[in-house]
Amino acid sequence: MAENGVSSIIPGWFSEMSPMWPGEAHSLKVEKILYQEKSDYQNVMVFQSSTYGKVLVLDGVIQVTERDECAYQEMITHLPLCSIPDPKKVLVIGGGDGGVLREVARYSSVEQIDICEIDKMVVDVSKQFFPALAVGFEDPRVNLHVGDGVAFLKNTPEGTYDAIIVDSSDPIGPAQELFEKPFFESVAKALRPGGVVCTQAESIWLHMHIIEDIVSVCRQVFKGSVNYAWTTVPTYPSGVIGFMLCSTEGPAVDFKHPVYRIDENSKTKGPLKFYNPEIHSASFCLPSFAKKVIDSKSS
Amino acid sequence: MAENGVSSIIPGWFSEMSPMWPGEAHSLKVEKILYQEKSDYQNVMVFQSSTYGKVLVLDGVIQVTERDECAYQEMITHLPLCSIPDPKKVLVIGGGDGGVLREVARYSSVEQIDICEIDKMVVDVSKQFFPALAVGFEDPRVNLHVGDGVAFLKNTPEGTYDAIIVDSSDPIGPAQELFEKPFFESVAKALRPGGVVCTQAESIWLHMHIIEDIVSVCRQVFKGSVNYAWTTVPTYPSGVIGFMLCSTEGPAVDFKHPVYRIDENSKTKGPLKFYNPEIHSASFCLPSFAKKVIDSKSS
Repeated sequence: MAENGVSSIIPGWFSEMSPMWPGEAHSLKVEKILYQEKSDYQNVMVFQSSTYGKVLVLDGVIQVTERDECAYQEMITHLPLCSIPDPKKVLVIGGGDGGVLREVARYSSVEQIDICEIDKMVVDVSKQFFPALAVGFEDPRVNLHVGDGVAFLKNTPEGTYDAIIVDSSDPIGPAQELFEKPFFESVAKALRPGGVVCTQAESIWLHMHIIEDIVSVCRQVFKGSVNYAWTTVPTYPSGVIGFMLCSTEGPAVDFKHPVYRIDENSKTKGPLKFYNPEIHSASFCLPSFAKKVIDSKSS
Repeated sequence: MAENGVSSIIPGWFSEMSPMWPGEAHSLKVEKILYQEKSDYQNVMVFQSSTYGKVLVLDGVIQVTERDECAYQEMITHLPLCSIPDPKKVLVIGGGDGGVLREVARYSSVEQIDICEIDKMVVDVSKQFFPALAVGFEDPRVNLHVGDGVAFLKNTPEGTYDAIIVDSSDPIGPAQELFEKPFFESVAKALRPGGVVCTQAESIWLHMHIIEDIVSVCRQVFKGSVNYAWTTVPTYPSGVIGFMLCSTEGPAVDFKHPVYRIDENSKTKGPLKFYNPEIHSASFCLPSFAKKVIDSKSS
């Protein structure tokens, strides 16, 4: 298996294999490899797939496909932002493809959108190959910081943000620290009282042990509420991805009942493809096997 | 690609490829092929996977893995049966592995469970390799009919069943007729007034055109309510599977709000792993792209 996942084993197909999901692999047929470089942090690849549009791959793991990116970008953004009345200052950590920025830019209440992405190559590649994602960078409220999210948060004055969205890759690689307690403590400090965070939190089918740990840490760090939600994304391993949604001490946040009604059919931003208030609430309903583990850590 | 999907392309892996999901394939690492025969209807294979337990494959398509079968069996059974007060007579069409029977057998109100499976080899193979599924056949209320579901329904007196569950494979192959209007008409006839049907109804990510047609047909045939629900099943293509839930004219059925409270922690039957009343209601919440299509057919 080559480092970038385009193996000589299935000629013409990209196969996603990882020790994080042993014994299984999802494969996409490759029409053409469009980009392939090693950045300071990871292997970056873009290919044209035959049925999922263009695909962004980091260290052999699919991050985005044009066909199903709507589910991830809309859910990771609107779950936290629709849970508070009028988000004004938002920080995105990771998310260098711009998709989360595109969704944050739908909020007229938002005044400032900071993004801290460690790998400039991801931003550049998105601008070159994924215009529908990179459009997020064009909003005048966006400030791009290329650097380490952990360091960025350390220099953030206490109580700065209404919401922080952590759009990270898996905890193997450059994103590892984003799953650890010191990071969550910095996030909590950077949020205003009653501020909210949403972090990518793996799959209930594959990673209950990781999720258990994250829930445990969040329960210690966040004195408001701590919740787990999930959604379907076909090209992520096991077909689902989860999110930790937490709030700091202060005005209570009931994540399960959105308070901000987003314009689902925006004329300027285009309609939402995936998110709606019903699926917002539904995403917090867990299968019994996951509910049992998460509830035991949460209470 | 060999007929059974264990290809010479990825040695030692099973790859699921089909014209129903072109350009993508999910693969599982094979420890050992346990069974491989051609029945009168299809290729039947069982293998031991390295991380999903034993796997049943029909015509190259994964039907069941020991690791994630709970999601499918519990949802296809409890979505319809928890939606009516006291199910007594239940018919299962397909479902030869026995998993749905196992779930139907949890209902103390049920007096009669008929199953009509076309392929006896599936039943035999399940009894040999999947005891946790085939246990469903041991319930004394179960009557197994080996034969064609369409013909079976034609001979069923009108208004016989409270609930019919159609646990079919995809509409390519022996299950094709189970997706067509005459079949749904027979189902409606075999149900009592206010009776319910739940049929396997493909993936919102892959098969919206098929779903659109099924919804259209069901709206013509079922004069009670017509609904679409979905759940996560990692080893099904795109990671999700949907269900059509319909009721006949008669006492109203509100599928979204279960009325039968199943014993989630049964001492004799074991606890439910996936289903609970919250995930029941949540499963009817659709992403906007699917909701738009389905609502336009439903009203």
